[in-house]
Amino acid sequence: MVKPRRFLKSEAALTDSLRRLAAVPRGSALVAGIGDDCAIFRPPNSREDLLFTTDLLVEDTHFRRATHRAADIGWKALARGLSDIAAMGGDPCFCLVSLALAPWCDAAWVNGFFRGLLLQAGHAGTVLAGGDLSHGATVVCDVVVCGAVPRSRALRRDGAHAGDAIYVSGALGGSALGLATGRGKAWRRHLRPEPRLALGRFLRETVRATAAMDLSDGLSLDLARLSKASGLGAEISPPPVWRGATLAQALHGGEDYELLFTAPPRTPVPAAFENIPLTRIGVMRRQNPGRVTMAGKPLVPGGYDHFLAR
Amino acid sequence: MVKPRRFLKSEAALTDSLRRLAAVPRGSALVAGIGDDCAIFRPPNSREDLLFTTDLLVEDTHFRRATHRAADIGWKALARGLSDIAAMGGDPCFCLVSLALAPWCDAAWVNGFFRGLLLQAGHAGTVLAGGDLSHGATVVCDVVVCGAVPRSRALRRDGAHAGDAIYVSGALGGSALGLATGRGKAWRRHLRPEPRLALGRFLRETVRATAAMDLSDGLSLDLARLSKASGLGAEISPPPVWRGATLAQALHGGEDYELLFTAPPRTPVPAAFENIPLTRIGVMRRQNPGRVTMAGKPLVPGGYDHFLAR
Repeated sequence: MVKPRRFLKSEAALTDSLRRLAAVPRGSALVAGIGDDCAIFRPPNSREDLLFTTDLLVEDTHFRRATHRAADIGWKALARGLSDIAAMGGDPCFCLVSLALAPWCDAAWVNGFFRGLLLQAGHAGTVLAGGDLSHGATVVCDVVVCGAVPRSRALRRDGAHAGDAIYVSGALGGSALGLATGRGKAWRRHLRPEPRLALGRFLRETVRATAAMDLSDGLSLDLARLSKASGLGAEISPPPVWRGATLAQALHGGEDYELLFTAPPRTPVPAAFENIPLTRIGVMRRQNPGRVTMAGKPLVPGGYDHFLAR
Repeated sequence: MVKPRRFLKSEAALTDSLRRLAAVPRGSALVAGIGDDCAIFRPPNSREDLLFTTDLLVEDTHFRRATHRAADIGWKALARGLSDIAAMGGDPCFCLVSLALAPWCDAAWVNGFFRGLLLQAGHAGTVLAGGDLSHGATVVCDVVVCGAVPRSRALRRDGAHAGDAIYVSGALGGSALGLATGRGKAWRRHLRPEPRLALGRFLRETVRATAAMDLSDGLSLDLARLSKASGLGAEISPPPVWRGATLAQALHGGEDYELLFTAPPRTPVPAAFENIPLTRIGVMRRQNPGRVTMAGKPLVPGGYDHFLAR
């Protein structure tokens, strides 16, 4: 798989420098910019905040023509953005789809792509509002999803407090197992992730989670991000592992699209929500921001960084 | 330049079928979906409508590594979306940038890209709210711009009436000339288009244009689109031609990013706005929707369709 030259800064370093360049001006209708699952925009006089997220899906980086069907790619292209909306407790409003087609794409492929995407849109109750079509050397798709939450109620990464309990939904490592084996339920989990939209709303309205994000790049990396954003560290025990997956896949494998969230230690959190287990895996600690330990030992982030060779 | 297989439907046919698939539900906060420069979203209780546009910029389709500098690419990636906001008379609020980097991209290129993009953002008074970074075989950039207009006031393609006068801003064909010659003012026009944001606001507030769009794919194709959307035809005389360009470049060359608009025949339209000439080039006619004639003869759309071989 091709990678940008090694001397390019890591994705995290690049994002950090962009965040400084693109600081949100005071008094802006933009409440939050780079650094969370979604940007937050507050229209004047509105009782709702709008959430915006954008996700690329790139041939030979995120999927391969030989193994991923068009409808699966369309489904996943939208599911990734919906998962970001879910992570902030939002309701999806609409999406925009930009698609650069490769020379090998035929009409059947394009139809399949949009069939999968619109099927996912229908499940989530959202609509396709527009987009752009072009062509290039390989297929590249970019999907923007707009969602809404009641004003100031978006679940963010930076809201956790010391002592808050840490939870994950579901079992982790299924997508990584599926990618490795190419079969069974795990492969289906990899191909057709289910954004946790209803769970996200439940966490916002009922649990009143203090922080949340979706697990797209692996628990070890994503929890480090949540901890860093909240100015805290985290101590966890091993998370629930997808049947057949390894602990390493559960800790570092990406694309599970489960939710990671925190809540005050005495908040009653049910053992499951709509048959999705909710498991307490640890506690937020006042220590080096971004430092994650498991059973007392440092858990080195092993998730996906687009610009670091692995 | 690579193209999707010939048997793929044309871009127009694909957009039409998506528009049917993705029809905006009645009562939706989405006022307009696929088919105009921007989608229009109306937040509950808001006095403003929000505009959304998304534009791809693809290596070897829209630019070449050998001839286009990183800062020029960043500038143009954002300018394209800002031009769509201008066409609807909007004020830009924020943008989202998704960027897939190629193996040849180094840190200097990435920095240059964002320097150009943020320079254009500063000129337009907009901010970078977020985005996504990835990697692929070639550079692909997708920029979403959100803009705002007073409720129900967006300039649309479908608002022209029979008898309305047709105008264009500026002189046409400069970008096509620049692309052909690679030098001088025309090349600069190609590299660093100037979105007509102030003009767009003037057309909405003062001229009260009945319809507008930006000239991104060439006058012949874009006027056919505006006419079709308004259910009318158009009769024009030759438009103002950029110095040194041919009439064919002015009629069919893309990427001038000037504004095309219509106004009732007796509306006073000044000869220029902030030194940009405004030229009356024709009249909307009750005839076959989308049919454009020049000096009485059919003007066959020669603009850019991503999926038709030329």
